[in-house]
Amino acid sequence: MTRIDDILSTADKGLERSLDRLFDLVRIPSISTDPAYKADCRRAAERVAADLEALGFSASLRDTPGHPMVVAHFEPKDKAGKVPHFLFYGHYDVQPPDPLDKWTTPPFEPEKRTGKDGVVRLYGRGTADDKGQFLTFIEAMRAWIAETGTLPVKATILIEGEEESGSPSLVPFLKENRAELSCDAAFVCDTNMWDEKTPAITTRLRGMVKDEITITGPRVDLHSGAYGGPAANPIRILSKLLSKLHDKNGKVTIPGFYDGVSDLPKDVKAQWGKLKFSDKKFLKEVGLSVPAGEKGKSVLEQVWARPTAEVNGIWGGYTGAGTKTVIPSQAHAKLTFRLVGKQNPQKIQKAFRAFAKAQVPKDCRIEFSSSGPGSPASEIAETSPLIRKSAAALKDEFGRNTALIGSGGSIPIVRYFKDVLGMDSVLIGFGLNDDALHSPNEKYNLSSFHRGIRSWVRVLGALGR
Amino acid sequence: MTRIDDILSTADKGLERSLDRLFDLVRIPSISTDPAYKADCRRAAERVAADLEALGFSASLRDTPGHPMVVAHFEPKDKAGKVPHFLFYGHYDVQPPDPLDKWTTPPFEPEKRTGKDGVVRLYGRGTADDKGQFLTFIEAMRAWIAETGTLPVKATILIEGEEESGSPSLVPFLKENRAELSCDAAFVCDTNMWDEKTPAITTRLRGMVKDEITITGPRVDLHSGAYGGPAANPIRILSKLLSKLHDKNGKVTIPGFYDGVSDLPKDVKAQWGKLKFSDKKFLKEVGLSVPAGEKGKSVLEQVWARPTAEVNGIWGGYTGAGTKTVIPSQAHAKLTFRLVGKQNPQKIQKAFRAFAKAQVPKDCRIEFSSSGPGSPASEIAETSPLIRKSAAALKDEFGRNTALIGSGGSIPIVRYFKDVLGMDSVLIGFGLNDDALHSPNEKYNLSSFHRGIRSWVRVLGALGR
Repeated sequence: MTRIDDILSTADKGLERSLDRLFDLVRIPSISTDPAYKADCRRAAERVAADLEALGFSASLRDTPGHPMVVAHFEPKDKAGKVPHFLFYGHYDVQPPDPLDKWTTPPFEPEKRTGKDGVVRLYGRGTADDKGQFLTFIEAMRAWIAETGTLPVKATILIEGEEESGSPSLVPFLKENRAELSCDAAFVCDTNMWDEKTPAITTRLRGMVKDEITITGPRVDLHSGAYGGPAANPIRILSKLLSKLHDKNGKVTIPGFYDGVSDLPKDVKAQWGKLKFSDKKFLKEVGLSVPAGEKGKSVLEQVWARPTAEVNGIWGGYTGAGTKTVIPSQAHAKLTFRLVGKQNPQKIQKAFRAFAKAQVPKDCRIEFSSSGPGSPASEIAETSPLIRKSAAALKDEFGRNTALIGSGGSIPIVRYFKDVLGMDSVLIGFGLNDDALHSPNEKYNLSSFHRGIRSWVRVLGALGR
Repeated sequence: MTRIDDILSTADKGLERSLDRLFDLVRIPSISTDPAYKADCRRAAERVAADLEALGFSASLRDTPGHPMVVAHFEPKDKAGKVPHFLFYGHYDVQPPDPLDKWTTPPFEPEKRTGKDGVVRLYGRGTADDKGQFLTFIEAMRAWIAETGTLPVKATILIEGEEESGSPSLVPFLKENRAELSCDAAFVCDTNMWDEKTPAITTRLRGMVKDEITITGPRVDLHSGAYGGPAANPIRILSKLLSKLHDKNGKVTIPGFYDGVSDLPKDVKAQWGKLKFSDKKFLKEVGLSVPAGEKGKSVLEQVWARPTAEVNGIWGGYTGAGTKTVIPSQAHAKLTFRLVGKQNPQKIQKAFRAFAKAQVPKDCRIEFSSSGPGSPASEIAETSPLIRKSAAALKDEFGRNTALIGSGGSIPIVRYFKDVLGMDSVLIGFGLNDDALHSPNEKYNLSSFHRGIRSWVRVLGALGR
């Protein structure tokens, strides 16, 4: 433990220089989605690679059809083969800064400002998403190397430059470099803390499968006077189908839908129960007050640990101003199913389609179109050693229990690491809900940056033991 | 009866001249919707008025903010006050002829052609809709006057010039001239025969009331990952609401919906049963095979004598290409209710709104907007003396029973005559389903024109008795 304290002290002393490096990186407008910033993206990648090389990594820029990847490896001294090997992921690209006139200070001229609340914040595009975040583990490694001359684990760093534009080059790159990039696990630094005092590890991400349905009734749109009554109306058929997707308790009625869904472990449920989370406040912020999910489940459980069948869009018939007395030929809906546990996306889609077909009269037709095979949930057991070690390290830093939380959405990179490289991801990040990601006045709290670095110093130590 | 035969003979002898008058009128492109044809509309009105004046009517053109009305009165000799007074309605305006290149002969150069089937047809825009139709009663009156010097009834003729563009001037005109235009009943000549051998009187038109609903759930569109589960989805609420509008037998479930709906009289049901109508063919033409209306009712009954609750349009959430994982803030639907019997549109709307509100969770909102108060059904008892007399006269002409039929839609003029002038309408017309109204190659069979004239000779005689 003494050694960790020394490393932490080194990190503390280096904080001003760490900040300089963050600001230097933020000054490069590495907007991946806009071709005008192609050279800036490359410049950001080169700076990261050069810095890692200087630190003792063997670092390189790897070209892709889009922006380059930064890949760097560190082989710990005297320990080759005896320590675990982890991949650390972040992204150097950022969102466009528009609308520019909403920024208090220019997006690419980072500034440290103390608020009226006494909190010091680092303003600028990318301070939180994701330059500030991934620098926390690089700066922690710097402190380790400065103090001990090495790292306690074998480390591979992957910093991509297309995360904000859909990561088109990532999967091909992972596939081409499978051997080089496959590690015991990945650490992804692109998520939030539970609140400013409570560290968090995201252990559950829901999967998703999509479908789009088109119901065809009459061959053409019909006059609702001449045909209203005997003619099947696809909007009515669609409404009925959709209304049958849930029972009165909010459970999805598709046969087999809950195959692979486990009840939440008691200890996880208890831990979530202790989080300061207000169902009422969560709903009130979006103008609601009645939880609409499965009865008997808390809001957190509904979002983090239960699957859904959701209609994202519906259309059919006349939707303009006034009235058109039509029985339309077709009606359409877009659906997504959020998945948890071991739910199989292909099986869910198949079961949904069978369910839907059964609702359609024999003289009408239902067609499906889907934009992909979907992805299962990404979950890592709250009891796994990696989670236990990381959570304990974070607790040491923050002095309170690490929240093991979920996320209702997906993070594609986690899926790719699992599917292509066969490794789990541990999601540790120090962002806060008010960081204004993708918005004007993006910021990262100085404490997020500082305690983030200190946290990684401790996590690295724990992983090496 | 001898006298009727003389008048019929006069009509027969005058057929070629009647045809000339029809063709002269068809040659005038009285397209009411296109301002470029304003003078032509007036020219058509002037020709009709001049012809009626020559016949012995006191006829006049009456200006409106749009195209002029033709109003003409005939006071029978020696019978003033002792005979019933009827209004005869038609319209001199026509639909635009586009697409012109689909016409075999130019739309405003009428032509008589004999088909391979030996049937003689009169081609040209307006031959059927409605110039040929309304001339049938004018030519019948001509024969009566030629043969007897008078008419057996007091007649008011109203020929409007805006029917094909929504009749914007009609209701104000009826209101301003209520005393002049109010008669014992109206005869409207703008409908079809049952088939080429079977005359028809339309005795039932469904009414209609409209509504549009907007359901608001969350304040803004939400991410379906972050909120899917606890957040109410207005598309799901709307689907459920719509799915509850009908029970498993196709009956509308809104409380009180069937107040004022009577069972079809046995004799009417029997008469409809005898019509050569194929449910299968009717549905097959539009690509369907399963009657979707109330179970236990024939297709004709479903369309002509039963009310409906129909969804004409639905929209909400993301409806573009691909996927957007959104829980929308709002979902919308447009509905129409077709009404029969004594159903009250305002009560139906009120009952629907109460029903709909009850389906919406308390933290969501439903709003309604309606473009008008709706209109009740227009029905005239199949047993009324006017219908009996007219049906018998048509039977005399065609040698087979007159079909007393319904129509699933509404004919606004019938509603206006009832609401503004307090009179019922008898709908007698000689069109056929293949007349191509509003389409290229519009035609009117020569037999429709000829037997139409002969029919009115008989109907006028029957009305005068």
